[in-house]
Amino acid sequence: MKASVIRKSHFNAAHRLHNRKWSEEKNQEVFGLCNNANYHGHNYELEVKLTGEIDPETGYVYDMKLLANLIKMEIEERFDHKNLNLDVPDFIDLIPSAENISVVIYDILRQKIESEFDLSIKLWETPRNCVEYPAKI
Amino acid sequence: MKASVIRKSHFNAAHRLHNRKWSEEKNQEVFGLCNNANYHGHNYELEVKLTGEIDPETGYVYDMKLLANLIKMEIEERFDHKNLNLDVPDFIDLIPSAENISVVIYDILRQKIESEFDLSIKLWETPRNCVEYPAKI
Amino acid sequence: MKASVIRKSHFNAAHRLHNRKWSEEKNQEVFGLCNNANYHGHNYELEVKLTGEIDPETGYVYDMKLLANLIKMEIEERFDHKNLNLDVPDFIDLIPSAENISVVIYDILRQKIESEFDLSIKLWETPRNCVEYPAKI
Amino acid sequence: MKASVIRKSHFNAAHRLHNRKWSEEKNQEVFGLCNNANYHGHNYELEVKLTGEIDPETGYVYDMKLLANLIKMEIEERFDHKNLNLDVPDFIDLIPSAENISVVIYDILRQKIESEFDLSIKLWETPRNCVEYPAKI
Amino acid sequence: MKASVIRKSHFNAAHRLHNRKWSEEKNQEVFGLCNNANYHGHNYELEVKLTGEIDPETGYVYDMKLLANLIKMEIEERFDHKNLNLDVPDFIDLIPSAENISVVIYDILRQKIESEFDLSIKLWETPRNCVEYPAKI
Amino acid sequence: MKASVIRKSHFNAAHRLHNRKWSEEKNQEVFGLCNNANYHGHNYELEVKLTGEIDPETGYVYDMKLLANLIKMEIEERFDHKNLNLDVPDFIDLIPSAENISVVIYDILRQKIESEFDLSIKLWETPRNCVEYPAKI
Repeated sequence: MKASVIRKSHFNAAHRLHNRKWSEEKNQEVFGLCNNANYHGHNYELEVKLTGEIDPETGYVYDMKLLANLIKMEIEERFDHKNLNLDVPDFIDLIPSAENISVVIYDILRQKIESEFDLSIKLWETPRNCVEYPAKI
Repeated sequence: MKASVIRKSHFNAAHRLHNRKWSEEKNQEVFGLCNNANYHGHNYELEVKLTGEIDPETGYVYDMKLLANLIKMEIEERFDHKNLNLDVPDFIDLIPSAENISVVIYDILRQKIESEFDLSIKLWETPRNCVEYPAKI
Repeated sequence: MKASVIRKSHFNAAHRLHNRKWSEEKNQEVFGLCNNANYHGHNYELEVKLTGEIDPETGYVYDMKLLANLIKMEIEERFDHKNLNLDVPDFIDLIPSAENISVVIYDILRQKIESEFDLSIKLWETPRNCVEYPAKI
Repeated sequence: MKASVIRKSHFNAAHRLHNRKWSEEKNQEVFGLCNNANYHGHNYELEVKLTGEIDPETGYVYDMKLLANLIKMEIEERFDHKNLNLDVPDFIDLIPSAENISVVIYDILRQKIESEFDLSIKLWETPRNCVEYPAKI
Repeated sequence: MKASVIRKSHFNAAHRLHNRKWSEEKNQEVFGLCNNANYHGHNYELEVKLTGEIDPETGYVYDMKLLANLIKMEIEERFDHKNLNLDVPDFIDLIPSAENISVVIYDILRQKIESEFDLSIKLWETPRNCVEYPAKI
Repeated sequence: MKASVIRKSHFNAAHRLHNRKWSEEKNQEVFGLCNNANYHGHNYELEVKLTGEIDPETGYVYDMKLLANLIKMEIEERFDHKNLNLDVPDFIDLIPSAENISVVIYDILRQKIESEFDLSIKLWETPRNCVEYPAKI
């Protein structure tokens, strides 16, 4: 009997969308305000979803205290109150778009969560813009 | 590497649920308050989801500025501050239920968004009632 | 020992902003899209606040079940799934702006709530537009 | 032409997570604060999703007034303002974790909703913790 | 130059509304479902507001990290995952209505926050019911 | 007959809390993570409240389309997708705390809004931290 559990968390970060292989003109044309050389920022709202069997001994798919703690240690500590471009090594060669941030979060958590659990990420960059990874059709 | 991106937007409209082939009694029985001949209205909250490959050059599945603008031009301009039954030709012969509004929005946007992107619609008619189209099992 | 209690409720209605003493041009200039002759509509979110002494016997300022029922009988029954301009007599000679709707709600409830309780109204017409009556500086 | 419709509702309940086959030490270790012998409680936010064909006569997948009433009769009446462990027979031998509450709600509603409709449950136990049943990968 | 700062926090608790000086009939008549002898519960959302001068050296009215920590130590530790009637001594002789919980929280924090800061409490017991203490007219 | 009207809007920005007159140690001690030299950021949610007489000709305290446009021109254009410390001259000698941002927004809008209207600002820096200016006791 499988169910999915979702844990929401939160981090605040600065970023800039900029492709170093492009001219400034092309960056401005593609990324517009998001290309501001001095950075801007967001309150990111993160949802981490795990899917697995409900353990009949606990009634849990996964202990939410452990999941909350895992997100705190692996994601919030790394991203919260940071400049994603400058402070987070994952984005040295990767544009910190919401899509790429979601992939990075997925890859970090995938290594920490047992493979019997399916994992997916939903990341709200603003109250109106959101990414799901892997894709949900 | 596929991800989904979601853009939320908003429009306010009046509507009435009424089947012209039915008697007034049957309309009242089926649609109740929603059959009010003078209309009532809602703040519709719309989520448009696109699924596709993350472009390694931009980190984007789809440029959210373009998606926001497309929704503004094609949906908000057509539906916002309108009477769906009287002002929107799509509903001349179609009851503007939340289900049918979702289908109409899907059909409009499907023609404007390249076929390589999967498209789906989520429409909140009130904070408690919502439709997803196509169906999500 | 005084406290304030707030009860939220909800109604959906159609309306039109239109001043019958003005020309169509002036109505269009002042009210724009809100002047649509066919109406548009909103999900109104209402907050009713009462202030009074905490009753030591009950721990209540006011029984919230009674307040919820009063709002249901006096406000929701009158406004929900209605066309404010056509179906609600209070707006025969009064433009149903969010400000005036708030005044009408206040006047209705003021007659039903004992004078020892201070009363105020907060009405969200959209998630971004709201009115408080009486004024809160 | 299939769509999904979602109805949100709400109930408040007390519960305790406790496995009677375990020692008090093990219960404390696994369930921590949730094992409080005197119970704690939550405002549960429930989303019920039905998937089916859009009826061309009504524009409905399912009459949302009927769905709201079904949830009220079958779920809210049974769970609202109750102690899940003591007042709800389903949890005599089942730990009332959010996962198990979701399964119980699903099983109750599955019997009341015609089999042509797919059914799923989403239950928020807190604003940060949520379950989906059946699992959504 | 004075400003107000607000910090939101959260706790989950069980409670029961019951006046020991009354008969069971009167308790049932006044408190209804809230009188359930086995308790029910809520996710309480708490807003603590402090008003004072903006310190020109820090730009702060009050260090929000300190305020968050104070709320955690003094309120969340005392109330979260507790039965308010049984586990919290403040409610031995006081009905744990939202009004009285607000007064208790105010009294606890008032002793910990310097008197130069004005203090007020807003407590949501459900998404639809809320108390402000002291009263806000 | 006076009422208050509230308009919500939104901007995203990077900032850093840092007092140039202090040592790095003192900055770190007081501002902690908020002192990150590379900046972090937020989705700021802004509420602008105007209080005045309800105009009997329009039913308006203030035309919300004009207020929305004023906020867009004067606040969003200046702050959105900016680094408050580097891109906004108001913060050259002023720490961009939420309190000081609120004062700056108030001062800008106060010059653009006729003196017959009372003005106040509410600014959410995160979903849990908020400022009101002028102070609301």
